[in-house]
Amino acid sequence: MTLAAYSQPRTVACRPSPECFQTSFTDAPIAIRGCVRTTLALRHAGVRSVEIAYELVGPANAPVVLAAGGISAHRHAVASDAFPEAGWWQTQSGVGLDTTRVRLLAIDWLGADGQLDVPVDSADQADAIAAVLDALSIEKLAAFVGSSYGAMVGLHFCARHPRRVCKLVAISGAHRSHPYASAWRALQRQAVALGQLQCDESQGLALARQLAMLSYRTPEEFAERFADAPTVSNGRVRVAAEDYLEHCAATWVARTSPTAFLRLSESIDLHAIDPRTVPVPTTVVAITEDRLVPLEDMFALAEALPRSEIRVLRSKFGHDAFLTETREIGNILEHALHGVCGGVA
Amino acid sequence: MTLAAYSQPRTVACRPSPECFQTSFTDAPIAIRGCVRTTLALRHAGVRSVEIAYELVGPANAPVVLAAGGISAHRHAVASDAFPEAGWWQTQSGVGLDTTRVRLLAIDWLGADGQLDVPVDSADQADAIAAVLDALSIEKLAAFVGSSYGAMVGLHFCARHPRRVCKLVAISGAHRSHPYASAWRALQRQAVALGQLQCDESQGLALARQLAMLSYRTPEEFAERFADAPTVSNGRVRVAAEDYLEHCAATWVARTSPTAFLRLSESIDLHAIDPRTVPVPTTVVAITEDRLVPLEDMFALAEALPRSEIRVLRSKFGHDAFLTETREIGNILEHALHGVCGGVA
Repeated sequence: MTLAAYSQPRTVACRPSPECFQTSFTDAPIAIRGCVRTTLALRHAGVRSVEIAYELVGPANAPVVLAAGGISAHRHAVASDAFPEAGWWQTQSGVGLDTTRVRLLAIDWLGADGQLDVPVDSADQADAIAAVLDALSIEKLAAFVGSSYGAMVGLHFCARHPRRVCKLVAISGAHRSHPYASAWRALQRQAVALGQLQCDESQGLALARQLAMLSYRTPEEFAERFADAPTVSNGRVRVAAEDYLEHCAATWVARTSPTAFLRLSESIDLHAIDPRTVPVPTTVVAITEDRLVPLEDMFALAEALPRSEIRVLRSKFGHDAFLTETREIGNILEHALHGVCGGVA
Repeated sequence: MTLAAYSQPRTVACRPSPECFQTSFTDAPIAIRGCVRTTLALRHAGVRSVEIAYELVGPANAPVVLAAGGISAHRHAVASDAFPEAGWWQTQSGVGLDTTRVRLLAIDWLGADGQLDVPVDSADQADAIAAVLDALSIEKLAAFVGSSYGAMVGLHFCARHPRRVCKLVAISGAHRSHPYASAWRALQRQAVALGQLQCDESQGLALARQLAMLSYRTPEEFAERFADAPTVSNGRVRVAAEDYLEHCAATWVARTSPTAFLRLSESIDLHAIDPRTVPVPTTVVAITEDRLVPLEDMFALAEALPRSEIRVLRSKFGHDAFLTETREIGNILEHALHGVCGGVA
């Protein structure tokens, strides 16, 4: 194992993305995209040479906040002048995540490019983030804000690199994957495998995504949105939610590698950490209606963490509340990030 | 439409089953299997000639109780000397369902043989049951005990044939399918379709069954049974519940026709009835943890029924509680059936 390579990650050109090193020098916050090439000792796959793509948006010298979302999230969290398309956490831009006051850092998950076809652990992701901080000469994060899988990675980051982060916000992600949620994901992976058998990955992937969406949302939301009676067309019954689910899945399939999905889905199920090993002050955010991460697990996390507070929200959007309950999440972020590292106003 | 044919259903030999007309004349309760051929006007598929297989167990002249379960249930509800294999409701045999005191009637659902490849409505099933009663010269059921889909059919039976039943027990089935549960079933049907695309129906069917099982059970049960960490084998992650889910699915696939599953699954989603049209006294049984039939829907059903009482159980088995909470269900059945039609002791 080449520890030297790990300790000195290099900033390189991403492949195949042409966007690397684009930088904005307008009045708007500076936005930088890049890649870090390094060597990581993966827990289940040995030493590997990897590339980690990142995006950093905000004023130079401002405190750095890392934002990490679910397995479908990526380095483009919020829009900027340089990269104006909506990011995966666009809803929070300026609402708890203000890129005029902080530098917002996000990465593409290890394995998200579909090139790394081995089991990836949430702890591996934490080390990948540390390598990015090394490459960017960022000594310490003001905060690590993780939602869903990002919260799992955040717990590992704080346990493994506690001196590199002042504060953790862990939204809808716990110290373990719940066994029922793991079974739900295993069936999504089976759907992909079934599609692959016929050399048409997209249909299996689309079914997997629809199954995932059911787990992200709630009966309360579906009762409101999809109350119409089913239709019988060409002798087949079609229920009210199918158009919506299929449309969302098609959009997702178009930008998702089956290998990446399988490996990141597995990674959630591999996740496990003893909360007592996380010394960083943590705000735990739980959603009462979350069908993937039961409230009980979030309470157990908060109780076992050495330094924690818990905030509980009600939301008909369940696990997806971090993408939809903008005001409540914004309030929690503002409160949690206030004054951390003496930097975030 | 040949209404005459409907009004005079004939008892015929089942095809292809060799078991028809077997009868036990030992000391044990008499057990009869048979088929009724009749003509039904199906709501979504017009007039059809159909066969309905039934089994009747218990002393001649005892009051008749009809037991109807989920879409996987069938005419063999409990074991008898003539048909000694365990039935789908074996757990309640002698516990609320005593075939020394009542005659227990059950049918194979319309469409369960896979021959009727058209949409089947829960109201069609109610009419099929009425045709069986005609053929067997059973004027009136002491009770219709329906669980899951069987409860849906029971509501229609009581609305359409109120003079043929004294009492309804509706367990874990409501006046509508919940939109979230319908979406869950639609994805099961997509899994079957994906398997059919590659001419290997069994794999799609197995995936569908595993998805269904997740909806029948609960996180509470899975947390107890499948808490082991996932394994990494041949480079793939396998979670603790997978062996169990795959084993159960394989057993089910071996005895299930894809067409039957698709049509009966659709039938649940087609189900809808105004509870105010159900004049028969009804005991509604709801399970707090049921992930398919929310407690709210069962309360709404009980409130809208003209003559109802509601019993609420807690069970980590969720929707499957009617198959596992033997004592509680037994107590409810004994209470509900006590003295109905002056017949059940």
